[in-house]
Amino acid sequence: MRKTNKNLREIFANGGMAKVMAAHDPLSAILVEEAGFDGIWASGFEYSAAMGLADVSLVSMAEHLNNMRNMAHRTSLPIIADVDTGYGNAINVIFTVEQYEAAGASAVVIEDKMFPKVTSLVEGGRQDLVSIAEFQGKIEAAIHARKDPDFLIIARTEALIAGRGEVEALERAQAYEAAGADLILIHSKQKTPDEIESFVSNWRGAIPIVIVPTAYPQMTEARAKSLKKIGILIYGNHAVRAAVTGMQNVLAQIIRDGGIQNANETIVPVSEIFRLQNMDRVKKNEKRFLR
Amino acid sequence: MRKTNKNLREIFANGGMAKVMAAHDPLSAILVEEAGFDGIWASGFEYSAAMGLADVSLVSMAEHLNNMRNMAHRTSLPIIADVDTGYGNAINVIFTVEQYEAAGASAVVIEDKMFPKVTSLVEGGRQDLVSIAEFQGKIEAAIHARKDPDFLIIARTEALIAGRGEVEALERAQAYEAAGADLILIHSKQKTPDEIESFVSNWRGAIPIVIVPTAYPQMTEARAKSLKKIGILIYGNHAVRAAVTGMQNVLAQIIRDGGIQNANETIVPVSEIFRLQNMDRVKKNEKRFLR
Amino acid sequence: MRKTNKNLREIFANGGMAKVMAAHDPLSAILVEEAGFDGIWASGFEYSAAMGLADVSLVSMAEHLNNMRNMAHRTSLPIIADVDTGYGNAINVIFTVEQYEAAGASAVVIEDKMFPKVTSLVEGGRQDLVSIAEFQGKIEAAIHARKDPDFLIIARTEALIAGRGEVEALERAQAYEAAGADLILIHSKQKTPDEIESFVSNWRGAIPIVIVPTAYPQMTEARAKSLKKIGILIYGNHAVRAAVTGMQNVLAQIIRDGGIQNANETIVPVSEIFRLQNMDRVKKNEKRFLR
Amino acid sequence: MRKTNKNLREIFANGGMAKVMAAHDPLSAILVEEAGFDGIWASGFEYSAAMGLADVSLVSMAEHLNNMRNMAHRTSLPIIADVDTGYGNAINVIFTVEQYEAAGASAVVIEDKMFPKVTSLVEGGRQDLVSIAEFQGKIEAAIHARKDPDFLIIARTEALIAGRGEVEALERAQAYEAAGADLILIHSKQKTPDEIESFVSNWRGAIPIVIVPTAYPQMTEARAKSLKKIGILIYGNHAVRAAVTGMQNVLAQIIRDGGIQNANETIVPVSEIFRLQNMDRVKKNEKRFLR
Repeated sequence: MRKTNKNLREIFANGGMAKVMAAHDPLSAILVEEAGFDGIWASGFEYSAAMGLADVSLVSMAEHLNNMRNMAHRTSLPIIADVDTGYGNAINVIFTVEQYEAAGASAVVIEDKMFPKVTSLVEGGRQDLVSIAEFQGKIEAAIHARKDPDFLIIARTEALIAGRGEVEALERAQAYEAAGADLILIHSKQKTPDEIESFVSNWRGAIPIVIVPTAYPQMTEARAKSLKKIGILIYGNHAVRAAVTGMQNVLAQIIRDGGIQNANETIVPVSEIFRLQNMDRVKKNEKRFLR
Repeated sequence: MRKTNKNLREIFANGGMAKVMAAHDPLSAILVEEAGFDGIWASGFEYSAAMGLADVSLVSMAEHLNNMRNMAHRTSLPIIADVDTGYGNAINVIFTVEQYEAAGASAVVIEDKMFPKVTSLVEGGRQDLVSIAEFQGKIEAAIHARKDPDFLIIARTEALIAGRGEVEALERAQAYEAAGADLILIHSKQKTPDEIESFVSNWRGAIPIVIVPTAYPQMTEARAKSLKKIGILIYGNHAVRAAVTGMQNVLAQIIRDGGIQNANETIVPVSEIFRLQNMDRVKKNEKRFLR
Repeated sequence: MRKTNKNLREIFANGGMAKVMAAHDPLSAILVEEAGFDGIWASGFEYSAAMGLADVSLVSMAEHLNNMRNMAHRTSLPIIADVDTGYGNAINVIFTVEQYEAAGASAVVIEDKMFPKVTSLVEGGRQDLVSIAEFQGKIEAAIHARKDPDFLIIARTEALIAGRGEVEALERAQAYEAAGADLILIHSKQKTPDEIESFVSNWRGAIPIVIVPTAYPQMTEARAKSLKKIGILIYGNHAVRAAVTGMQNVLAQIIRDGGIQNANETIVPVSEIFRLQNMDRVKKNEKRFLR
Repeated sequence: MRKTNKNLREIFANGGMAKVMAAHDPLSAILVEEAGFDGIWASGFEYSAAMGLADVSLVSMAEHLNNMRNMAHRTSLPIIADVDTGYGNAINVIFTVEQYEAAGASAVVIEDKMFPKVTSLVEGGRQDLVSIAEFQGKIEAAIHARKDPDFLIIARTEALIAGRGEVEALERAQAYEAAGADLILIHSKQKTPDEIESFVSNWRGAIPIVIVPTAYPQMTEARAKSLKKIGILIYGNHAVRAAVTGMQNVLAQIIRDGGIQNANETIVPVSEIFRLQNMDRVKKNEKRFLR
């Protein structure tokens, strides 16, 4: 497995909670690392958005994988890869796990929705789940396929999103732990943390929980830590939303001003991009190796 | 050729000046279109930056091409593709032009540097130029390769960047026009518009000029139009700089706050990303075609 | 739509039958064109095989599409793209059709299996079909998505493969025609043409039929033409089987001989590869454009 | 580095000679492994040919790399990657070595031609060489970039191909050894082994030599071994020539016969393709993990 600056499992094994931020390309992944997060969320939603596509299984596995591999080459943080449903059934999951582990991911999140999926946060989206037995087979296939036991298989249940209620959510989570999952990701689109906090307090499993508090921003890191059972907290889509915000403002300003005379002051200079591209290393190597 | 909302040639043929903004992925290209620009600059520098790589010919043609094709599928603006040196000699230029035209570009910019290149704005970068005769061969090859005469071949001279002076810059521009170029891109990294304005005032050619005023932001659109000879004004890297600025600020805020409770207010909501992904169309089509 | 040397629809509209051969890369596509076939089958099975992968939806759409686009750039025959189930539901079909048409295909074949699929010819493979209504939705979505009415939507029913019998096969074919399909592909893995001939003789629809006689090689072109209703006959996997046969023999010979002294006589010379790569055109262009 | 069934260095370190066969896709790589060769030559020429393109630097590094990575995933033989000139200067070489090592190659061959290249075997092709000093810088950059010292840097000199004579060829080889190369590849297009045998007998360096006897097939493995200094013998393009031969014959036969009734007997059955695709493993995993 790719060597990272920290091992994800170590963080939460010692009672810690990893805070992980979404990225959609190597540049945003570099910014996530520089900002001080513990890991990178190779988000399917962010990547679809960067491609200008709806997050409904239009982006191919090969494309998301390649993007994730490029992130891995440019950063040293552990990467958690969002592989949706595993791109098909248990056979596809085996291929997916083999490929993402080889490409440098530290973990995959596989969810119990039917393929093709609709993103969880859309109003009125289809939210069909596969049976518990079928999803257990997918988790077992993932465990079977990984080479390094530190490559984490995170089982994501969409039971709350699908309106199946907490009892089924807990039942699914328990079944997924029994099948070998290393962590359970429980997703909610309620506007407050209540639903998640209730689930967590009723969780009797031995493995930690992953949450994605996009819809309930009151769930700060401190509050999540106080629940004692959260191993990873993922910020699911803030990098791409920040990028869009930055671009919309500046592009509008340039149109308004009829030029870049003011915009130049509100954005980082070109030299900052050079720094992020590691031009210094290139110049040093040019001196050393170009004849 | 891909149908665009405007034909680039028409804009400047009628004395107009197209204002064109860089993009690095389909999402930024969509934002450029929404902001009101006339065209998209499929920038090699921005794309390298998005890939986390220095702009020194590390990104493959196949990757930049694929990114450009994806932009073309998601937007209706004309796209000017930055193909550096054409990825090799005149033979490579032929292949490059065939591929970019087929992928939906409206124009390519080919520059007279040696391959592999260093980005023009770096202090002390190598800036070797190919001979005038060799570059004329490349322009003729590009003209020969295009299928649609409205696919524009823009010849970019780096003579000023390379410190060769205005006389050589004008000589090169003239030679490139003679070889069939549709426009001349003249690049400068001086901090004021003087160098460019002098070149433009001394330009006797019949074809319009393209400028990229990154280094001299005093060159507003109004000022450029007053020169009478500017057909296209390209903003070369402001989208990626705006994206980085937006992300750096928000990621730092989240780290500082230990959560997204405040960041959520400073960035566009998830629903804005859905809008940019055209989720509405997906939902409409789901209603119509899913049984 | 990409200009091809013949329009597929014209061939069978005039009572003709197009004979189409599978290819797995641009080189085999060039050989198919040179051999005298009427079209290229951008086969999912062959492409998976070339990738060394089982044909169970492991290869991504983006990869198959890219391979097909490369075939289109190097040949002038019409290409029929094998897009399996359309890579998901009706929403995915829309994206698939848009992408393949833009990439230069002349037709897509979409099948009524569930995703992810197992190849039809494997003993004991899972062969679940989607409902007729669901598949009609996918056909309607495909029709809706195409830009050129000459881009053909071919509906493939796996009813016989799945053991559902001729009655259901006819019912499905009829329903798919009603939904707008341009042709019906009926697949069989019986070792003789009986099953297919019975289906064809009982077919009352107005649109032509496509067959793939891999399992029943007694179905010659003459015999197929005599059935009057066959618009396209596809040879599904003979190019890759011929390539494997050629390579296995020669590689074994080289191992056996401890050298290439004899193998060199049994295979085409390097100059034949140069010819297929169009080196002549490169040399001509080098003379013309290299200075 | 990827675990392979043998370590290349071990083979020739113990006085052995590795025999290595070209492949152009994962399928041909699998056949090379099954036939009993010691390694796979991820040939640029074969890959260009498979893409239907002349071998003149039209194929992007990203594409060749991706193909090589796919070969590495499907085989266990060591892979020697043909990276032409390293896709640019010493800076590009660093990126190239990082990428190919991460993708699972065991070695790269870098040649001392100018970029963009023309394939070595074409009559009258341009054959410009870079200076010795420049190429030493590229080798040093490659050594600097590799992570595993068992990742081999093979320096290929085209001095004989370029008509520079044996003295310069030996001088270059010596200089490349001094710069750190692990082996020297010496290429010749003479129709007999004389030129190569003379070079080898005059070679005073400590590192082994690699030869590619395409043009002089009299050079059997036994004869090469008797020279004592050959570490690797590469068969450069026989897989693709065998594939073309197989396909041309069978496609012509099908056209001639108006059907596959006879061709079916001359090629491997579909079941052989299933075997190569590892369908057995898929079926076993379906039984185990599909619920």
